Amino acid sequence: MATVHSEKLLQAQSMLEPNQVWLIAVRESLEHPEPGLKLVAGVEVTWASFFLVSKQHAVAIVGRYDADAMPTDWKVIPYDEDVAPILQAEISKLAPSEILLNYAHEPLCDGLTHGMYLQLVEMLPNAPFASAEPFLGKLRSQKTPLEQEYIAQAVARAEVDLEAMTKALQIGWSERDVADFLHQGLRRDGLEPSWGWAGCPTVHIGPLARPSHAGPSDRQLELEMLLHIDYGVRLEHGYCSDIQRTYYITKNEPTPPILEQVFKDCWNAIEAAAQVLKPGVQGFMVDAAARASLTKAGHLEYKHAVGHGLGRATHDGGTLLGPRWARYGQEPFGVVQANEVYTLELGVFVEGHGFIGLEEDVLVTENDLRWLSNRQNTLIRLTIS
Amino acid sequence: MATVHSEKLLQAQSMLEPNQVWLIAVRESLEHPEPGLKLVAGVEVTWASFFLVSKQHAVAIVGRYDADAMPTDWKVIPYDEDVAPILQAEISKLAPSEILLNYAHEPLCDGLTHGMYLQLVEMLPNAPFASAEPFLGKLRSQKTPLEQEYIAQAVARAEVDLEAMTKALQIGWSERDVADFLHQGLRRDGLEPSWGWAGCPTVHIGPLARPSHAGPSDRQLELEMLLHIDYGVRLEHGYCSDIQRTYYITKNEPTPPILEQVFKDCWNAIEAAAQVLKPGVQGFMVDAAARASLTKAGHLEYKHAVGHGLGRATHDGGTLLGPRWARYGQEPFGVVQANEVYTLELGVFVEGHGFIGLEEDVLVTENDLRWLSNRQNTLIRLTIS
Repeated sequence: MATVHSEKLLQAQSMLEPNQVWLIAVRESLEHPEPGLKLVAGVEVTWASFFLVSKQHAVAIVGRYDADAMPTDWKVIPYDEDVAPILQAEISKLAPSEILLNYAHEPLCDGLTHGMYLQLVEMLPNAPFASAEPFLGKLRSQKTPLEQEYIAQAVARAEVDLEAMTKALQIGWSERDVADFLHQGLRRDGLEPSWGWAGCPTVHIGPLARPSHAGPSDRQLELEMLLHIDYGVRLEHGYCSDIQRTYYITKNEPTPPILEQVFKDCWNAIEAAAQVLKPGVQGFMVDAAARASLTKAGHLEYKHAVGHGLGRATHDGGTLLGPRWARYGQEPFGVVQANEVYTLELGVFVEGHGFIGLEEDVLVTENDLRWLSNRQNTLIRLTIS
Repeated sequence: MATVHSEKLLQAQSMLEPNQVWLIAVRESLEHPEPGLKLVAGVEVTWASFFLVSKQHAVAIVGRYDADAMPTDWKVIPYDEDVAPILQAEISKLAPSEILLNYAHEPLCDGLTHGMYLQLVEMLPNAPFASAEPFLGKLRSQKTPLEQEYIAQAVARAEVDLEAMTKALQIGWSERDVADFLHQGLRRDGLEPSWGWAGCPTVHIGPLARPSHAGPSDRQLELEMLLHIDYGVRLEHGYCSDIQRTYYITKNEPTPPILEQVFKDCWNAIEAAAQVLKPGVQGFMVDAAARASLTKAGHLEYKHAVGHGLGRATHDGGTLLGPRWARYGQEPFGVVQANEVYTLELGVFVEGHGFIGLEEDVLVTENDLRWLSNRQNTLIRLTIS
C-alpha cells in the first residue's frame, strides 16, 4: 500500500522539471524539523543529511546510524566521517541546471537553516541554487487523495471531541478545564493538538476574554456567557484540523439578539469568502470578500488572514487567503487551485459579551467547494441546568 | 521564583559585550522550533517575531495574538501589518556595533532559517550581522545551577524507568515490547522520550541487532542473550537525559568471559575519557583518550564522538568530545569549561553475541567530574526464570 509519504514523493517528482534537483538539507531533525522532509519522508535524522529528488531519482545521503531507518523508496548512501565528497559525486551524476533549496518568505517552505545553507555553498561552490518556494508551495498545497482523506479524518475527530466536551461541560468550568478535558481524550488515544499542548485549544469564556494565542486562563463559565473555542487534532498520520466554534450558555433564557446578529454577520462573511474561493482566484480576493462583508455590517476588520492552507501543518503554507499586508509578502498573491484545503475563519468581539469566532475547513475542487467541517450555522445554545 | 528561562536570559545578558545585540528571528515556532529561543523564553510564536537581547534590554517584537503569551521579563511590542519599521526603530535605539544571529556550523546554534536571514538583510540593510556561535555555544554549554538540577532529575528518572523495565522484562519480549513498556510509563506521567517516540529508546536484542537509530524491531528476547538499551527522558521543564545500559539475560548460566572482557574494555575506555575530561582540555583530546584505550584493547573504533553536550536538547551543542572529522567542523576544538554536562558513550559489537554499549552523563566542575548517572560497573546479569 502506498504511504502518504511515497504518494507525495511521486507527486514531487512529477512536478519537477527534468533539469531540476530538489535538495533537502537537514540535521538534528528532532530539534530542527524540516517541513519539506516531513512531507516526502517520515523520518528523523541526526547528522547532516541530504535528500536529492529529481524526476527519476530519490537519494538519501545520511549518517551511518540513520541509514536503517530510511524508507524503501529512497536510495540510501550512508557515510561516517565526511559527507562532502559523496554529495558532490551525487550532484555531478544528476548534473542539474537548477538546485531547489528550501528557503522562502513563506514559513513552511523555509526549512533550510542559514548555517546549512553556508555549508552547501562551501561544499558545492557555484552550484545553481534557487528557492524551492514556487515548487514546494505547490507541492504542499495540492493535496493528494490520501491527504484529503486524512485531513477530513482530523476534522471529524475534532468535531467528535467538541461534541463530547459540550456534553461534559458544567457551570464553573474554567478555560483550563475545557482544555484539560480535550487534552485527556487526546492523550488517551496517543494524539496531539494541532498546534501544541500550550496553545491548542484556545478557549475564551465570557466578556473579558480577548482573542490571543495565550493559553487558557482560570476564567470560569457562568450562565449567559459566550464560550469560544479554537481547536484542532493532529492524527497519527500527522495531518491536522483547525476549527472554531462559539456557544452561548443558558438555562432557558433566550440568546440576546445582538449575539444572534453578530454570529449571522460572521457567518455571512465566511459565506462571502466561500462564494469567491475557487480555482483561478488570487488569495487576497477571497480575504477581501469576507473583509468587505464584515465591515459593511459595521464591524472592525479582523487582524489576520481569512484563511490559510491546512495539511501536515496547521498553517500549511502555499497561497494565503489574506490581505496584501507587508508581513504576508507574496503569499496572498498566489492563485487558488483545485485540491487545496483551506480554513475560513474570522470573528468579532462584542463588548459586554465576549468573542464570537467561526472557522470552517474546506476543500477546493474543480467545480465546487466541499465543506470538510459540519458548518456551524447558528450560535449554538448549550442548555446547562 | 526565577524560572530556568529567566535564569538563562540573565546569563545571556551577562555574557554579551556592551556593543552587542543578540537577535533571535523566528516564526511558526511549532513547525520551526528555535533552539536558542527555547533556552531563554519558553514560548511559541506564529507570525515573524524578533527577540532582541542586549546587556540591559530584552525586547520581544511579536504578532498581536502572540503578545499575551510572552514572559514578563521581556518588553513586548505587538504588531499587526508590518514589522519592519518597528524592528528598524528598536535596532536604531540599541545602536549595536554587532548583531549576533543564530547561524552556525553547530546544529543547536543554527536556529535561523535562510529565508528569515534574507528578510533580515532586507529589513536591516548593512547591519553588522555576525554568527552567534561563540556566544550561544557558551550559553548552551554553561549550565546554571537550576539546569544542572533539572538534568540530574532527568537522569534519575531514566534510571528508575530502566529499573522498572528490568523487573517487568520476560523471555519472549521483543525490542518493541521493551520500548512500549517505557513509553507507557512516560505517557502516564505526561513525559516524553529524550529523542522522540520513534527512536527513543533504541533497543538491541541478541546477536543480529546492529546499532542504529532505527526503531525497535520484533526480535525477541531469549536466554543467554544481550539486551542493550539507549534511553533518556525529557521532563516537564524540557531538560533531558541520555544513558545506555547493557544486560545479559540468564537463568543461571555464567556470563561468557568474552562479554565480561568486552564490557570491561568499554568501561576502561569511558574511564580513560573521564580522566582527561576537565576544564581547559579540547574536546578531541577526550575522544582520543577513549579511542586509544578501546583500539589498544583490540576493538574497532566507534564511528561517532565519545560525548556530546546534554541539556535542553539531547545533543545540546557547544563543544563536542569528538574526533577531528570533517563533518564535525570546529566543534571538537572547543575548550571544556566547568559547569558543562556531557555524555560519555561508546560500544563494541561482539560477533555471535551482539552489541555492548555504555553511556554515562557527567558534570564537569572546577575540581572534579560529577557522575550524574549511577555508573554501570559490570555487565548487569538479569536472572529470568
